[in-house]
Amino acid sequence: MPGGARIRPTILTSVALACGDDRPGLTDAAAAALELIHCASLVHDDLPCFDDAGERRGKPSVHRAFSEPLAVLTGDSLIVAAFETLARAAVADPARGVELVGILAQRTGMPGGICAGQGWESEARVDLAAYHRAKTGALFVAATQMGAVAAGQEAEPWEELGARIGEAFQVADDLRDALGTPDHLGKPAGQDDRHGRPNAVSALGIDGAMGRLRDILGGAIASIPSCPGEAMLAQLVTRYAQKLVPVSILHPGE
Amino acid sequence: MPGGARIRPTILTSVALACGDDRPGLTDAAAAALELIHCASLVHDDLPCFDDAGERRGKPSVHRAFSEPLAVLTGDSLIVAAFETLARAAVADPARGVELVGILAQRTGMPGGICAGQGWESEARVDLAAYHRAKTGALFVAATQMGAVAAGQEAEPWEELGARIGEAFQVADDLRDALGTPDHLGKPAGQDDRHGRPNAVSALGIDGAMGRLRDILGGAIASIPSCPGEAMLAQLVTRYAQKLVPVSILHPGE
Repeated sequence: MPGGARIRPTILTSVALACGDDRPGLTDAAAAALELIHCASLVHDDLPCFDDAGERRGKPSVHRAFSEPLAVLTGDSLIVAAFETLARAAVADPARGVELVGILAQRTGMPGGICAGQGWESEARVDLAAYHRAKTGALFVAATQMGAVAAGQEAEPWEELGARIGEAFQVADDLRDALGTPDHLGKPAGQDDRHGRPNAVSALGIDGAMGRLRDILGGAIASIPSCPGEAMLAQLVTRYAQKLVPVSILHPGE
Repeated sequence: MPGGARIRPTILTSVALACGDDRPGLTDAAAAALELIHCASLVHDDLPCFDDAGERRGKPSVHRAFSEPLAVLTGDSLIVAAFETLARAAVADPARGVELVGILAQRTGMPGGICAGQGWESEARVDLAAYHRAKTGALFVAATQMGAVAAGQEAEPWEELGARIGEAFQVADDLRDALGTPDHLGKPAGQDDRHGRPNAVSALGIDGAMGRLRDILGGAIASIPSCPGEAMLAQLVTRYAQKLVPVSILHPGE
C-alpha cells in the first residue's frame, strides 16, 4: 500500500501530543488503526460496483491487480486488522482501548460512519450535509477523539474540531477541483463542474468558498479544548489549511 | 436477517455457562458479535464475485434485494457492528473486552481467520486442511474461546474443542451432502460429487467418514477443559452431533 498523505493519523497523534500523550504505544496503535480503516474504504470504493477505479496512488487498484474477490477480502481484512491493532495495544490500558474500539466503530459503520456516507450514493435523494458529514467528516472526528482518548482525555469536547477539519477538507477539495491543475491534484480537475455535482464553489462562487473555508478554520481553532498543547494545535490547523489549498490559491500574489 | 441456526453463539454461551458465566451481559454481547461476523461473511460470500447466490435462508440475498454496492457496505457494517457490540458491553470489564476483540479479530481476518479461508478459493493450489481450518473452523474456535474469556477463563485451553467441533461440522456437512435429501439440507444434495470437490465421503467412503466423525466427537469431548459444567458440555457436543447428522444417517434403523 503506497503511503498516501496520512492526514488522519497525523491529526490523531497531534491531538494526543497536545493532551500529554502519556501512552504513546496506544496512540501509535490508534493512528495505525484509523489509517487501516481509511485504506479499507479506498480498496472497497475502487471496486467495480462503486468507482470502478483501475488505479490508486499511481499503482493498479487492488481488484485490478489481484481480482475482485481478493479486493473484497482485503477490505474486510483491513477493517478487522484495525480492531486487532487496537486490541493488541490496549492490553496496557484496557479501559482506553475499549473506548477507542467504540469510537472507531461508530465512525466507520452505520448509521454515522463512512459506510453510511458511502451508502448515501445509492440513494435517489441525498441529504448533502449528512452525506459529507458521514463520508468525509466521520474519520476526522475519529482522529481528534481517538487522539484525546489515547492520551486519557474525554472524547466529547474534541468532536467539533474533527467535524470542522472535515468540513474544511471538503471545501478545500471543492476549491482545488474548481481551480487546481491535474498536477496539483493528482487527479483530473473540474470533475464536479463536469458532472454537475453540487459543491461549495458552485454554491458560493470562488470568493464565497474562500470566505467559507476561512470561517471554518477560524471555528476549528476556536473549538480546540483547553489543553497543554492548545497553541501548537492551532498552528497545526493553520499549517494543515495551507497544505490543503496551495498558497497560490489561498493568497494570490504570494 | 432471518435467524439461521445460530450454532456459533449457542456454543459460545454454553461454554460461558460451563465456566460459571459471571458476566452474562458480556457473554451475550460476545455471542451477538460472533453471529454478526458470521452474517457479514454470508452477505459477502453471496456477492456476484464469489458464489453469486440469489437466495439466502429462503429470501433474496442482500445484493439481489438492495444492489451490490449496498451488499458490500452491509457486510462491512456488520463486521464493524460486531466490534461495536463488544466495545459497548466491555465497559463493564474492559480487560475481558479487549481480549474478546482480539480473539474475534484473529479468527475473522488474515492470516488465520475466515477472510483468509475464503481467500484460499482464489488460489490455484489449495492446502485443504488449512482452508477448512480457516474457512469453517476459525469461528468455532472463536466460539469456545470467547465463551471462556467472557466468563473470566483463559482462552488457550479451549482452542482444541472449537477446532474439533469445526472439523466435525465439516465431515457432517460432507455426509449430509452425500446422503441427505434437499429437504434435509435446505440446498441441493450431491454438490461435492457433482463438482468433483474433495470431501470426507469421497476420501474415506461413507462408513469411513462416519467413523471419522465419531473419532472427532470423541476427541472433542476428551478435550473439554475441566470446569464446573464439563459434563453438561459433553452432553451438548453429543446432542449437537445428532443435530448435525440426522439420526436416520448416524443410526440407520432408528
